[in-house]
Amino acid sequence: MSLEAIYPADRVTLREVGLRDGLQLAKAVPSTEAKRAWLKAEAAAGVRHYEVGSFLPAARFPQFADIHEIISASGALGLHSAGLTLNERGAEAAIATAIREMVCVVSATEAHSEANARRSRAAAVELVGKVAALRNERAPDKLVNAGIAMAFGCSLSGNVDPAEVLRLAEACLAAGADIVGLADTVGYAGPRAVGALCAQMHRLCGNRPFIIHLHDTRGLGLANAAAALDNGARVVDASLGGLGGCPFAPGATGNVVFEDVVFLAESMGFPTGIDLEALTPARAIAEEALPGESFHGALHRAGPPTNANWQATA
Amino acid sequence: MSLEAIYPADRVTLREVGLRDGLQLAKAVPSTEAKRAWLKAEAAAGVRHYEVGSFLPAARFPQFADIHEIISASGALGLHSAGLTLNERGAEAAIATAIREMVCVVSATEAHSEANARRSRAAAVELVGKVAALRNERAPDKLVNAGIAMAFGCSLSGNVDPAEVLRLAEACLAAGADIVGLADTVGYAGPRAVGALCAQMHRLCGNRPFIIHLHDTRGLGLANAAAALDNGARVVDASLGGLGGCPFAPGATGNVVFEDVVFLAESMGFPTGIDLEALTPARAIAEEALPGESFHGALHRAGPPTNANWQATA
Repeated sequence: MSLEAIYPADRVTLREVGLRDGLQLAKAVPSTEAKRAWLKAEAAAGVRHYEVGSFLPAARFPQFADIHEIISASGALGLHSAGLTLNERGAEAAIATAIREMVCVVSATEAHSEANARRSRAAAVELVGKVAALRNERAPDKLVNAGIAMAFGCSLSGNVDPAEVLRLAEACLAAGADIVGLADTVGYAGPRAVGALCAQMHRLCGNRPFIIHLHDTRGLGLANAAAALDNGARVVDASLGGLGGCPFAPGATGNVVFEDVVFLAESMGFPTGIDLEALTPARAIAEEALPGESFHGALHRAGPPTNANWQATA
Repeated sequence: MSLEAIYPADRVTLREVGLRDGLQLAKAVPSTEAKRAWLKAEAAAGVRHYEVGSFLPAARFPQFADIHEIISASGALGLHSAGLTLNERGAEAAIATAIREMVCVVSATEAHSEANARRSRAAAVELVGKVAALRNERAPDKLVNAGIAMAFGCSLSGNVDPAEVLRLAEACLAAGADIVGLADTVGYAGPRAVGALCAQMHRLCGNRPFIIHLHDTRGLGLANAAAALDNGARVVDASLGGLGGCPFAPGATGNVVFEDVVFLAESMGFPTGIDLEALTPARAIAEEALPGESFHGALHRAGPPTNANWQATA
């Protein structure tokens, strides 16, 4: 499938990252059955795009040991599945599966690149190129996604120059990535910084959509999502109940809350195709499967406005 | 003091409403001593503007029975104090005190006006005129503030026409109000609606600042505050820890969180003059005085970004 068919440039797509980012630091490992039920319930609410795990050694990352089963389950439900390929071995593993999108990570700062992946930024961009070459050769239908971590500030290096982020984004596209993401990995961003960088990304990418990945660490996740949508971002990562954290962001509340992003996007006039009420059973499954985690979200608590039109008209 | 001296049009002012809006539905009544300590601690962090209570019968509203003591305490600390005057008796009581701002409420919808205040919107605007006349005669130094409740949607009447809100704002200014506020009383607003109405208010008010009062009921409080600041709002209501609720908004989380609004404003380039770390002792006092309430806030949990410049330069 083409990029345009999967991420249409003229509408907003929400990507559920809870089964990947949300499980990264989770205390419990949900059963494969629970993951399948979660996927099925969330798909029934209209969610089509999922990060389903990471291609990492099962012994050290038991939460992703069943990634093959989850890819199968996504395929059976007709969903778009993405998985992290953080090294060549991961890419080799991914290419042999039916996963539809391979996600590489490039850090915006040298310090985080070395601390997180033990490689330089240049080597990370090179890996994007290798994954794209592998895809071209053996699985031309898969997408290659390059996410730029720490794009709005780094807990190790402090301020990040937006020009550096744009340079890396351009290098990833030149290396063969189909789509690039900007990640506020540690929740440093404010809406003006997000708006300004998204506007520049929009110019860089032209008709090609780009992804915004936000954490609500300091309460500005939704404000930043609004600024991103106002400035050309059309793909927004989020997780049910805001599940997730980051080893570099102590006290982080996780990704922006999926339900709240649906409400935000609709309120801004972007139809999401997602039935908010139908997300509740999916959330209940995730909560049951992850007893040690906090689930957040204002919309879930308060419900949508009564008596008023809040949904965007398609 | 003139409006310009209290709410300068060229900078952002945050109004702490916790001692009024935050106590409206609180289960416990904080002692006068606790309120004084809270004020003193928050003033030490640089917060200058406070709603300190409502002029209501002490028998039915014990949380505001000590409003005279709190006005004195504010005065002694050199703070700007505001109090709700919801009827003529309240205005008479206020005028005899040293309170610096009298706040009237006008509902955007007839249904909420009748349900909340048992008067029509026209009668509410008339009351603004009476309070202003009283002020002109007997206390020309006090400000008159008219807050428009349900300005972005009403739990009783549904959608609210922005033109109606602007008409009421204009009527309040014509009746003698110095400053008008727009309140998302039940948390129905999204950032585009807030941005659009604030832009129109900005045109209506010219050089005169206006207030935005937001609740974080559905997670969009900070996104809405960002949109308001982007579109000319320069006075933002908030409460420490997001204290507060609304009888018309079940499940409401209260006002937008003061600490998070400080971080937002600074991130957008507006210096607030507020020391975030120094807010922590104030919050501890409020939490101890209100054992039954939930205190929220991402910034308080995660702390400001380390290693990076996040404060606006004055």
